[in-house]
Amino acid sequence: MRFGHFDDDRREYVIHRPDTPLPWINYLGTEAYFGIISNTAGGYSFYRDARLRRLTRYRYNNAPFDLGGRYLYLRTADGEFWSPTWQPTQTELDDYECRHGLSYTRIGSRYRGIRAETLYFVPLGETLEVWRLKLTNEQQSAVELSVFSSIEFCLWDAQDDATNFQRNFSTGQVEVADGVIYHKTEYRERRDHFAYFACSEPLEGFDTARESFLGPYRSWDRPVVVQQGESTGSIAHGWQPHGSHHVKVTLQPGETREIGFVLGYWENPRDAKFDPPGSQTVDKRLVRPVIERWLRQECVDEGFAALGRRWDELLGGLQVDTPDGDTNRMVNIWNAYQNMVTFNMSRSTSFYESGIGRGMGFRDSNQDLLGFVHMIPERARERILDIAATQLPTGGAYHQYQPLTKRGNNDIGSGFNDDPLWLILGVAAYIKESGDWSILEEPVPYDNQPGSEESLYGHLQRSLRYTLERLGPHGLPLIGRADWNDCLNLNCFSDTPGEAFQTTENASGGVAESVFIAGQFVLAARELAGIALCLGRPAQEYLDAAEKMAGTIAEHGWDGAWFRRAYDFRGNVIGSASNDEGQIFIEPQGMCVMGGVGVEDGTAVTALASVRERLATPHGIILQQPAYSSYRLELGEISSYPPGYKENGGIFCHTNPWLMIAEAIVGNGDGAFDYYKRINPSAREALSEVHRCEPYVYAQMIAGRDAPTHGEAKNSWLTGTAAWNYAAITQWILGIRPELEGLRLAPVLPSGWPGFTAVRRFRGATYHITVERGGSRSLLVDGAPIDGDVLPAAPAGTEVTVTLTL
Amino acid sequence: MRFGHFDDDRREYVIHRPDTPLPWINYLGTEAYFGIISNTAGGYSFYRDARLRRLTRYRYNNAPFDLGGRYLYLRTADGEFWSPTWQPTQTELDDYECRHGLSYTRIGSRYRGIRAETLYFVPLGETLEVWRLKLTNEQQSAVELSVFSSIEFCLWDAQDDATNFQRNFSTGQVEVADGVIYHKTEYRERRDHFAYFACSEPLEGFDTARESFLGPYRSWDRPVVVQQGESTGSIAHGWQPHGSHHVKVTLQPGETREIGFVLGYWENPRDAKFDPPGSQTVDKRLVRPVIERWLRQECVDEGFAALGRRWDELLGGLQVDTPDGDTNRMVNIWNAYQNMVTFNMSRSTSFYESGIGRGMGFRDSNQDLLGFVHMIPERARERILDIAATQLPTGGAYHQYQPLTKRGNNDIGSGFNDDPLWLILGVAAYIKESGDWSILEEPVPYDNQPGSEESLYGHLQRSLRYTLERLGPHGLPLIGRADWNDCLNLNCFSDTPGEAFQTTENASGGVAESVFIAGQFVLAARELAGIALCLGRPAQEYLDAAEKMAGTIAEHGWDGAWFRRAYDFRGNVIGSASNDEGQIFIEPQGMCVMGGVGVEDGTAVTALASVRERLATPHGIILQQPAYSSYRLELGEISSYPPGYKENGGIFCHTNPWLMIAEAIVGNGDGAFDYYKRINPSAREALSEVHRCEPYVYAQMIAGRDAPTHGEAKNSWLTGTAAWNYAAITQWILGIRPELEGLRLAPVLPSGWPGFTAVRRFRGATYHITVERGGSRSLLVDGAPIDGDVLPAAPAGTEVTVTLTL
Repeated sequence: MRFGHFDDDRREYVIHRPDTPLPWINYLGTEAYFGIISNTAGGYSFYRDARLRRLTRYRYNNAPFDLGGRYLYLRTADGEFWSPTWQPTQTELDDYECRHGLSYTRIGSRYRGIRAETLYFVPLGETLEVWRLKLTNEQQSAVELSVFSSIEFCLWDAQDDATNFQRNFSTGQVEVADGVIYHKTEYRERRDHFAYFACSEPLEGFDTARESFLGPYRSWDRPVVVQQGESTGSIAHGWQPHGSHHVKVTLQPGETREIGFVLGYWENPRDAKFDPPGSQTVDKRLVRPVIERWLRQECVDEGFAALGRRWDELLGGLQVDTPDGDTNRMVNIWNAYQNMVTFNMSRSTSFYESGIGRGMGFRDSNQDLLGFVHMIPERARERILDIAATQLPTGGAYHQYQPLTKRGNNDIGSGFNDDPLWLILGVAAYIKESGDWSILEEPVPYDNQPGSEESLYGHLQRSLRYTLERLGPHGLPLIGRADWNDCLNLNCFSDTPGEAFQTTENASGGVAESVFIAGQFVLAARELAGIALCLGRPAQEYLDAAEKMAGTIAEHGWDGAWFRRAYDFRGNVIGSASNDEGQIFIEPQGMCVMGGVGVEDGTAVTALASVRERLATPHGIILQQPAYSSYRLELGEISSYPPGYKENGGIFCHTNPWLMIAEAIVGNGDGAFDYYKRINPSAREALSEVHRCEPYVYAQMIAGRDAPTHGEAKNSWLTGTAAWNYAAITQWILGIRPELEGLRLAPVLPSGWPGFTAVRRFRGATYHITVERGGSRSLLVDGAPIDGDVLPAAPAGTEVTVTLTL
Repeated sequence: MRFGHFDDDRREYVIHRPDTPLPWINYLGTEAYFGIISNTAGGYSFYRDARLRRLTRYRYNNAPFDLGGRYLYLRTADGEFWSPTWQPTQTELDDYECRHGLSYTRIGSRYRGIRAETLYFVPLGETLEVWRLKLTNEQQSAVELSVFSSIEFCLWDAQDDATNFQRNFSTGQVEVADGVIYHKTEYRERRDHFAYFACSEPLEGFDTARESFLGPYRSWDRPVVVQQGESTGSIAHGWQPHGSHHVKVTLQPGETREIGFVLGYWENPRDAKFDPPGSQTVDKRLVRPVIERWLRQECVDEGFAALGRRWDELLGGLQVDTPDGDTNRMVNIWNAYQNMVTFNMSRSTSFYESGIGRGMGFRDSNQDLLGFVHMIPERARERILDIAATQLPTGGAYHQYQPLTKRGNNDIGSGFNDDPLWLILGVAAYIKESGDWSILEEPVPYDNQPGSEESLYGHLQRSLRYTLERLGPHGLPLIGRADWNDCLNLNCFSDTPGEAFQTTENASGGVAESVFIAGQFVLAARELAGIALCLGRPAQEYLDAAEKMAGTIAEHGWDGAWFRRAYDFRGNVIGSASNDEGQIFIEPQGMCVMGGVGVEDGTAVTALASVRERLATPHGIILQQPAYSSYRLELGEISSYPPGYKENGGIFCHTNPWLMIAEAIVGNGDGAFDYYKRINPSAREALSEVHRCEPYVYAQMIAGRDAPTHGEAKNSWLTGTAAWNYAAITQWILGIRPELEGLRLAPVLPSGWPGFTAVRRFRGATYHITVERGGSRSLLVDGAPIDGDVLPAAPAGTEVTVTLTL
């Protein structure tokens, strides 16, 4: 069952009814000012940091779901009122449509002959959002309308705002000047920033106190001010600062009017906060021109067009035309878009991530790179250097760092032994895309300590050494707190309720080893060797280490029909046919084959067959089977989930593209593409009543076959799934793969495809690629045949025509 | 304007309408299982720790305010439904009444001829709450009713529950067996505890998934199950576990039926969690008999009666009959009740305290003692020893400790230099009440380190020494992070938004001194000297130190017409006529006079006159004047509040009783009682539309004269205000004052009073006290005149008649 449709021409998903199975959200903002917005205008906004600079208040897990947002009310002279975005009044509208586009959302409806469409977006270069309401009178007679806006301000620190009422109910402050509502809580003390909410029309009235606007014991479904048709002019003193304008318009039959609202964030210079100086009145001289500009309709038009051009440019890095519509749609629009959102948000802000908890993940951010490095290589470069500067002198890593300070997060700690290797893979991806070898010479400190700088290349060497210095009794890498699977906690032994598995002090003296890290090491060592070779530096050491580790995997990591997962604290095997539960895990199958392990001797193919037999479901590939039916002290969080959910037998989508890549590596294009389609959200659109999450982006998890809700997705948007699926389809199935030596073209297509075309921007040149099946293999570049599958370097700015016949 | 009335005979506050200015709450539970409940059944429950063992979900600062609670719905066969507690349907009821009593609440209403009354309480000795619904058909014909219950389960850790959705939406689990709903999220792993929700009647149906009960995008005001009259039998898998029963009853005209619900918490032995062992099914064999018992009506009747007897006993420690009804009501019922609640909750759980943040305060808990030590001296003894064990070897103190672990809280830290002195005052109060000198010989560790034990007396000596080892250039005590006023941060200099003033690293090298601590030191040193004298230990040293400090105050702490507040980091005076703002503070005026400073030389009287002139308002005495109009880096948080709120010129009620005591000390009974009445909540009942908080308990703060909302109270219930006001009225104005040598009777009455009577339990004996005005002073004990004003010791169990003629 569908709740909408894709409008690929406009790069929009169009939602047909407001009561989607879950709120289906979108993101506003691409630089510093961000927001989430649902299909019924729910959500919130923030400046840079979703925890510390939250502009508007939102209550997660509320009932109704998704209450709190960017609300408008229309009221006719007879007293009837409704919200043109359905929420919060939930009026049964005559029609309704939400169009989620690239960094904008447009929600339209018709009721009582009034068409109302609201466009929400954040202009480039600004720290504000625009709401443009377009009203059309489709009645036969003139109509007099009251328009009310409503937002609730958050008192900046979202965590404190939700818990510290003995203070916060006394601190709220606002100003209203020239019809603009200024929210200035704590501006009087240490904040140099405030929020503002402005309207393009002369005001009939306003409210800034939530209770005055809503009325006592009321919610947003029937604010007393809207019901009565009259603002109160309230000024908030503590309690809940709120912003509401009241505007009256009369529309002749057929007439259209536009009303603009601007909600923004502003920082004044610390020494110019007040006007006059010495007063407590916000100095508005710098912000006023910005507000006035964005209340002008022509400025909004141009700003919206500029946003579209920005996305043209970003998406222009790769556009494909394949026989499969779901592939085209995801690669050309939504997967790329999700990659950019993931880059901007890391794991902080979604319908599932409350913006309170998590910093930037060392491991996450390195993987997110894979998805956006071709769109903005310079941002990837910056991100890499930020990450590397949090690496520890041991070569280990803080598991997370804070985006505002860029310092490693001591609370989460370190010792996730896969972390350092991701830095090698991230840097390799960056160089492959950009050809920018200079990054390796950048001096980067350890743990942000001045004086500790070493070249980034030195960091990569330490990363590899970190693994080699931490091998277990089988010669496999020690797992530490966890490897990629944060929930496989082999040194934790937690029996205390609520204790965090990732931060609790680990038991010492164990020998827990990870086959996953072993596979990852082989991959990373070979990548570093490739880099070293290009640089003319010694590489043999890395190749030897990779070879040796591959041998160790073959000896101690192979279970007979698949790769084992790990050895536990006491040396017992995990992910083996000899286990009663958790016999086979997906991660080592994917990572070992990606590292090349078993590709030559055929064990890779055997492992992949086992995956298909034991883990694949119509909704994707399960993380492990059989799921753990009870808690296992020696395994940790993985066994804490009910069977079929999350790491305990859920379809953890992040891992699925590894299997797609592995299938491509062994030449199975049908198998790779089959897996791709199983979790491709567009391909699952018709199952929306089962999938429940947005059909335009990947979710982190789909409930596995042991779950009563098999097929139900959760945790959409912010997941490494986005970057890896993008890599799997574009680099391995379509085979347009950046390498150190240039752009490789090595598709592994499903057998039914006659071919595809693509346009790929690479190191400044643009490649027009045609892949077609023919009698015999040939590769033509600008009409001339070339050997191998790596396209020769082309000068920046040139257009290159490439034809590959398979 | 009133929203209810006091029913003193039943010890209840009776609320007449549901839409009180703010939710007016009460507390359920007195031992281990607790809840808050509003006058419309809002609130939540927890076991011991409001953060880590939260049973039900509540959303603070929601709209409507106070949504989420212990809800019932009634539905007639024609499909109409309503909540007999008004929320959440907000149906306009034909009548409504909420009776908040001592640890129980009863909410009744009538609608469509159905009278419904629900009694909520926690039986003594149990970890569960009972809801008893009594339905009466007042119609002329039989009526068929559906009853639906509704609670939403919290996933135990309230902080995690409100932020970590990427995990929590996948973990929820329930069981339903024999009509009982078991909430067992995480029971499968490390929790040995679960919640249950049972009903006394055979079920027509049930729901355990919130969305199934409410319906998509709905709230509790119109659950789809109630609207349709049929439960769905939903079993929650992740998302939001919920509990709802459906019961059908037919009531003949005039018939009354009772339906019982039990919501509880249960811990199984770790090795007997599952039945059968090896399964994942909750072992219910231990809990079933408990559930069955409390579903029986006669058991509930007896349990409720036992609760009443418990309160009879607790309140029996002191009952007074004075000419002032507000005094009688607060002393005999509500203030004593609030003292017990404050003792149980510290500052964790109220409408303003979200249960997430704060541990037990070293300073808070010592002061809270003052209010309940006469009711349960043995609990006070235990509390004192817990507190003292967190004292540091330096004599300093952690500012807070955690109630579950009883360890000092490193996050909040130490260095609040008033803290150690409160231990002396708390112990003195305990000994005075109990006569239990043995506590001083108890071995108590420092910082909970085994091996560091010293007698409690030694702890008190170190407390005093802590101050003497930290004197500033004027000889006044250094203030450290702060003294009693947490918001006067003289060493902080915070310019970072959102930084905590109390935990940020302080600047070093300053000389900030506190006149308040100086006054407190004089008081504490004299108390310790008194204890030493009784013990026959050296006391002169303490008396000399007190004398010397009093002299220092006179020299450097006296401003000419009042006591100064402090000297800042650089030695500049605070709380002086020479300041432009913050010229006079309330705290040193109260504390110095309580320490006896200036009582002999008349400066005390001068200071009190200044308070009356500059700080007293009809709504209470303001903390300081003039309020700080802008943020002052050198003063910290106090200047962060808008003028008139909290410490920045608010009426911080905690401090007001110090002035009442000071007035009593200088013999001004009219002045003392005048201040008492200004903030006495019962006396402010008629101002409820201004005061807004509950008229039956003290609030921490009333907005001061600089605030636009002057007279509006905030942060009711959990405040040291309760204990101190109780001490002021009972010990100083009524003058029934425990001393080391026995019970002193030294009233300082308002001039208009002819006298009063009281019954006071003291060290096991019961004193029947009559105070009356007469020609000449005499004190008769059992008819015989005695000298002085200390009653001779009476054997436990005896009744003593005391007549004081003034």
